[in-house]
Amino acid sequence: MPKLCLIRHGQSQWNLENRFTGWVDVPLTEKGEAEARRAGELMVEAGFEPARAFTSVQTRAIKTLNLALESAGILWLPTTKDYRLNERHYGGLTGLDKAETAEKHGKEQVHIWRRSYDIPPPPLDDSSAFPSLTDRRYAGIDVPKTESLKITLERVQPYWEAEMVPALKSGDLLVAAHGNSLRALVKLLFGVSDEDITGVEIPTGNPLMIDLDDALNVTAARYLDEARATDLPSF
Amino acid sequence: MPKLCLIRHGQSQWNLENRFTGWVDVPLTEKGEAEARRAGELMVEAGFEPARAFTSVQTRAIKTLNLALESAGILWLPTTKDYRLNERHYGGLTGLDKAETAEKHGKEQVHIWRRSYDIPPPPLDDSSAFPSLTDRRYAGIDVPKTESLKITLERVQPYWEAEMVPALKSGDLLVAAHGNSLRALVKLLFGVSDEDITGVEIPTGNPLMIDLDDALNVTAARYLDEARATDLPSF
Repeated sequence: MPKLCLIRHGQSQWNLENRFTGWVDVPLTEKGEAEARRAGELMVEAGFEPARAFTSVQTRAIKTLNLALESAGILWLPTTKDYRLNERHYGGLTGLDKAETAEKHGKEQVHIWRRSYDIPPPPLDDSSAFPSLTDRRYAGIDVPKTESLKITLERVQPYWEAEMVPALKSGDLLVAAHGNSLRALVKLLFGVSDEDITGVEIPTGNPLMIDLDDALNVTAARYLDEARATDLPSF
Repeated sequence: MPKLCLIRHGQSQWNLENRFTGWVDVPLTEKGEAEARRAGELMVEAGFEPARAFTSVQTRAIKTLNLALESAGILWLPTTKDYRLNERHYGGLTGLDKAETAEKHGKEQVHIWRRSYDIPPPPLDDSSAFPSLTDRRYAGIDVPKTESLKITLERVQPYWEAEMVPALKSGDLLVAAHGNSLRALVKLLFGVSDEDITGVEIPTGNPLMIDLDDALNVTAARYLDEARATDLPSF
């Protein structure tokens, strides 16, 4: 009966500034770092002892993982970093302030880009403004120009099936990732509809502990920081 | 022509207190953390772009690696952690203050344990005093009760040959480890004699950049922080 613990990275500088971040590398705020350390303590209090960790290749998720592992006393945990766990690529919205974007494109249109399952924002024309989108970490990888949540799921799912499901056979897993790559995992695991998944809000730095049966059906799920829990999909 | 960069972890609490540490998990001091961050900056200034990193399963080496990667802007680097890169296990000396040990066993004897190549200290009878020696990171591993440098090298060498040499074929490597596991690598790479190797002092947090030819012979070697460099063996 494997367990899976999902942690959305702690608050980042652009979460704070309400800007679309996507694949740009943005540091955690002090609050975000504190959330990450607290996540590690909560895992210890819950008796959670993962066998392996997975994260994206984005600094804010990796740093969240490292801070959580350190405060849990398990910095030695084998860790795999993969771009398929990256945040949804926000295309042409990358770097924009959410209020400004609403003024420019209209509130309704921004709502569609943020909340529809399969409508991607316009593509990012010139990614050179964001060096972390084009640096050598993505050598050999076809970096997208924009993504919907559906497109995000279409890269998360094969990674889940090929790398994470086999790893679950040898022990519990910890995943430190992003709002939308974790939404994709939640959609797969809980069987959430296309309509409902964009309404699922995963709080930053709050470990979501999921019990699975051997067929990988969810049998229980809870946030370890109950005071900051949000509604979970039914299962 | 692969490059290999070796970093001994920054100053630890027990380095500062002059105690034998070995496999006990001891945190870095603030100075040690600063050394690690500076190591990352020095790598960037030197234009070093590793393809992968290797470290031990001990917190002080992993933390050194993470701080260096973060300040170099490459926290995404694929990283492998393995106990075979751990510090030499100091056996019955573990946790003892070096001056006290000299009083108890005699200066001459302590000098032999510290500086001979193949004489291990007495075994550690009761490792339960040090929880980090017996926790689940070592599940399935036959944790030694003591090690000489020779015994340390005998676990480092097969790991070097089986994991690191093949990895060098796809790019440069960064290794964050310990005084004696790095001595073992230096002995192998530079062909240092049993007599001379224990006299090789690797400074903490100072990246040692080694150029190799395709047969893995050393063709050049230098410390990136020249002001804190020590003598290197001939090659």
